[in-house]
Amino acid sequence: MKTKDKILYKSIELFNQSGSQSVSTNHIAEALGISIGNLYYHFKSKEEIIRAILDKIDQISSLSAFLEVETPETLSLIQRIFEATFRIQYEFRFFHNEIVSLLKNDPLLRTRYEKFKNKRFVELQQLVKNLIQSGTLQDIPFDSYHNLLEAEWLILSFWLPKLEMEGKALHESEIKRGIIILFELFLPYTTEKGKEEYHAWRERWQPAAV
Amino acid sequence: MKTKDKILYKSIELFNQSGSQSVSTNHIAEALGISIGNLYYHFKSKEEIIRAILDKIDQISSLSAFLEVETPETLSLIQRIFEATFRIQYEFRFFHNEIVSLLKNDPLLRTRYEKFKNKRFVELQQLVKNLIQSGTLQDIPFDSYHNLLEAEWLILSFWLPKLEMEGKALHESEIKRGIIILFELFLPYTTEKGKEEYHAWRERWQPAAV
Repeated sequence: MKTKDKILYKSIELFNQSGSQSVSTNHIAEALGISIGNLYYHFKSKEEIIRAILDKIDQISSLSAFLEVETPETLSLIQRIFEATFRIQYEFRFFHNEIVSLLKNDPLLRTRYEKFKNKRFVELQQLVKNLIQSGTLQDIPFDSYHNLLEAEWLILSFWLPKLEMEGKALHESEIKRGIIILFELFLPYTTEKGKEEYHAWRERWQPAAV
Repeated sequence: MKTKDKILYKSIELFNQSGSQSVSTNHIAEALGISIGNLYYHFKSKEEIIRAILDKIDQISSLSAFLEVETPETLSLIQRIFEATFRIQYEFRFFHNEIVSLLKNDPLLRTRYEKFKNKRFVELQQLVKNLIQSGTLQDIPFDSYHNLLEAEWLILSFWLPKLEMEGKALHESEIKRGIIILFELFLPYTTEKGKEEYHAWRERWQPAAV
């Protein structure tokens, strides 16, 4: 692995452990056994490291892989996307737990995060359009879905931080509960076909243990 | 005002200005022109001040005043409650912006916050029950409302932090947008009567300027 990537991954590990505020560039260099000068050669500051971490999140969060699959668009595709999103968030949990203060304190990060969010939002809109076309979601004016997607986005963004606040570990059951809550918001907008899909999925998805 | 209250209000002011992490008990005492010994007489630590601030939020957040009014329960009651909630959150905005790290770092605060949340949740459930009784919300099994209320709670909790993240000032229009998003999640569960109420409210509530 290149030094630059080593710095990134070690930073993510340390930030996840202790929060980004308690980890300095000195700590990171020390944990890697490299000189601080070597670290600064790659990243001028902790802020730059965090911005590079957002780039990583951006890369792996793209929904294009999901959207290009040629299988018909069904509700269970949304489930897979929500699940993948939560898993990515968990990998970078410091970022999501600290997001309010991180974006407040670094306007450059905020601008980049807005771009990231807008990209995801356009992808989500595309997904909803596909689900309308495949007859899973109701064909109502697309504007009606806008506020719903905003609500979905907020819940998606803060479900993990909320679990963290409650001192809950990231159990499978908690991820599932989050996905069910996200799903149920779509439920009133599904067609009959969509409702059937939902109930079939829900039965597979809620074993007694949850 | 008693010294204890003066300390509380000055702390809220300073925390809102600069975030609670950058404000020490020394800063608070200095800003009030009292000795640090005097401050410690009332509060043993910054954590104790923050816990007392949550007690204040708890006091003024009770929905009992709304729930006891003898006017029939309508959707616009929900609107007034959401609006009041956002205004209270704004008064104590540091608390909501930092909530993830505050609760993570102080298990005692977390326990108290859980109690606070549970109280509000029971009140929200009561409100939904009243709206079902008054014929505004559909009379479906109450469990169906549970996940919806969880979603509402999450959005209600993180709407202001989200605006903060986006660098948006707390404009009226942004509060209104939040309330509309919260409202629309209820919309599929309204009766015909409820839908009429909603559309009448929405017309009054979305002037050209928003």
